[in-house]
Amino acid sequence: MTKLPPAPSKLAFVPFVSVENMMRIVNTIGAAKMMAEMADYIEADFVRWDKFDKTPRVAAHSHEGVIELMPTSDGETYGFKYVNGHPANMARGFQTVTAFGVLARVDNGYPILLSEMTVLTALRTAATSAVAAKHLAPKNAKTMAMIGNGAQCEFQALAMQQIVGIETVRLFDIDATATEKAVRNLADTGLKVIACTSAEDAMTGAEIITTCTADKQCATILTDNMVGSGVHINAIGGDCPGKTELHRDILLRSSIFVEYPPQTRIEGEIQQLDADHPVTELWQVITGKTKGRTSSDQITLFDSVGFATEDFSALRYVYDQLEATGHFVELDMIADPDDPRDLFGMVQRAKV
Amino acid sequence: MTKLPPAPSKLAFVPFVSVENMMRIVNTIGAAKMMAEMADYIEADFVRWDKFDKTPRVAAHSHEGVIELMPTSDGETYGFKYVNGHPANMARGFQTVTAFGVLARVDNGYPILLSEMTVLTALRTAATSAVAAKHLAPKNAKTMAMIGNGAQCEFQALAMQQIVGIETVRLFDIDATATEKAVRNLADTGLKVIACTSAEDAMTGAEIITTCTADKQCATILTDNMVGSGVHINAIGGDCPGKTELHRDILLRSSIFVEYPPQTRIEGEIQQLDADHPVTELWQVITGKTKGRTSSDQITLFDSVGFATEDFSALRYVYDQLEATGHFVELDMIADPDDPRDLFGMVQRAKV
Repeated sequence: MTKLPPAPSKLAFVPFVSVENMMRIVNTIGAAKMMAEMADYIEADFVRWDKFDKTPRVAAHSHEGVIELMPTSDGETYGFKYVNGHPANMARGFQTVTAFGVLARVDNGYPILLSEMTVLTALRTAATSAVAAKHLAPKNAKTMAMIGNGAQCEFQALAMQQIVGIETVRLFDIDATATEKAVRNLADTGLKVIACTSAEDAMTGAEIITTCTADKQCATILTDNMVGSGVHINAIGGDCPGKTELHRDILLRSSIFVEYPPQTRIEGEIQQLDADHPVTELWQVITGKTKGRTSSDQITLFDSVGFATEDFSALRYVYDQLEATGHFVELDMIADPDDPRDLFGMVQRAKV
Repeated sequence: MTKLPPAPSKLAFVPFVSVENMMRIVNTIGAAKMMAEMADYIEADFVRWDKFDKTPRVAAHSHEGVIELMPTSDGETYGFKYVNGHPANMARGFQTVTAFGVLARVDNGYPILLSEMTVLTALRTAATSAVAAKHLAPKNAKTMAMIGNGAQCEFQALAMQQIVGIETVRLFDIDATATEKAVRNLADTGLKVIACTSAEDAMTGAEIITTCTADKQCATILTDNMVGSGVHINAIGGDCPGKTELHRDILLRSSIFVEYPPQTRIEGEIQQLDADHPVTELWQVITGKTKGRTSSDQITLFDSVGFATEDFSALRYVYDQLEATGHFVELDMIADPDDPRDLFGMVQRAKV
């Protein structure tokens, strides 16, 4: 028999969900159902908001973009996401945003999950939007305008269908091929999908307006006169300093809901407003501590930038699917010598 | 032919160095040679100290220990390490410290390396100690006392042999089995290895004194009367708030050298001193900007806590060994659809 180095202990292994396995998980469960189940995890974690160690993300900015680490912990489990944002990537054939994440045990510090999070972030972002819309949009909203038909578009449409009950999406993008792609991808979902020729056109009759464009600059996707009373605006694309989508005047007419004010005031649409402009935290609405929508002509605005707890919820959800789906591999990521003091001996004994 | 989902693009893959492959790399190159080569990377990065984005580590403290993220960037490459420190782990059969790390391209944010760092951190810590000793220890130092014979012990001994030229190590640990383990592991290294019965005994005739014990508390491994003039103290074990190894009086008699003062003042031995106690930064000695040892009766103290740039250097080194050694696998970590806007379509097409 060939002499083999001693096998690593079970403790040495960390389950890893690759992009391929994440896609298998999505296709096994179904994207819409997965987002609905994930929304329950996200809501549950918003409900226990005070349990979380909340730190603004740690960002490394460069001329081309940003690389961020987003850590959080609920006291039992620790999680973080690595995520980049590089607006020029798309033109060079790279993804604007890629991400991966880790869960670990707080009591011993050992990682328990490494997962791709590019696909997962798209799912959790849409699930979070739908959670917010469920609490803030007009009752029985049936139509959503979707301005910006990039990578997030179809996930938003499906999550809003599954969780909020919308039946129609009205799509617009300055690039018609993006809209064509979204129309194609949404063909068999049961949604009525309408390609529109302008943002105004897309917004006709829509109770929910989702903006999700990608320029790293202050843009004005929506001007004040375009937005009628009573709608819910789900603003996804303004998510870093210097990147906004809505005209300031819309913000001044809206009741604004955010994930975590210290982060949103720097990164969200409200970077355009005074630092003390009143906002409501989403968790307060979810727990019933504060009212969400209080009248039918109120404009509600979810100024979403994405927060670490949402990634944490998404990773918890994926972790809970591992056993049932089996869509993961074990990575030998942790050195676990029989005698913890004998790291050197472990390395020596691996010599065959 | 079976219909297979489209293969991920080359961009989707990130080289991963598992613990097993890290041990293969160590055993292919040789631990001593590897630390000497890594020391060159560490020195080179200390020389270009002002190029680095230096952030104190982001720590999540709990009753049982700490989980930290240590990011840095040189403007071209970004790196971070995940590391835990759980003093009670050893008694429960876990490693006190486990770690992994990532390198990424700043220009597009894509990860280019994921590596175990439990073994690698042991190597880089010892290599850093040896770099400091090379610049600070008495010329022609031949004997090192090694107080604390845990996981770091043999790496320290080998690095000091290879890089500083020591010939004898005098070992002491309150647990004699730890010393026995180190004696065994260092048997074929060419070092003269002497097991000692007390810290005082170990220090007899030693020009370099390395302390590396693991209690998460303020301990006094060395008292003032034990330390004679002219020695170099390499203090490794005091590396978090509330954890120190040296009596304060020793610090007051020493010329103190540190990696990054804002971090060391919180985590190092000098947490016992006033916040403005003079210290010298190691990079200033390496670049020749400041003198290191200036007299033969001076006590030099390297108050080492480990800094992000050292992990960065170690990861750079490993990255540069990938092609020659082949000891890695490719992980499908990044979703890379043909059309970056068509993430949803990529997931759909994976359905077979």
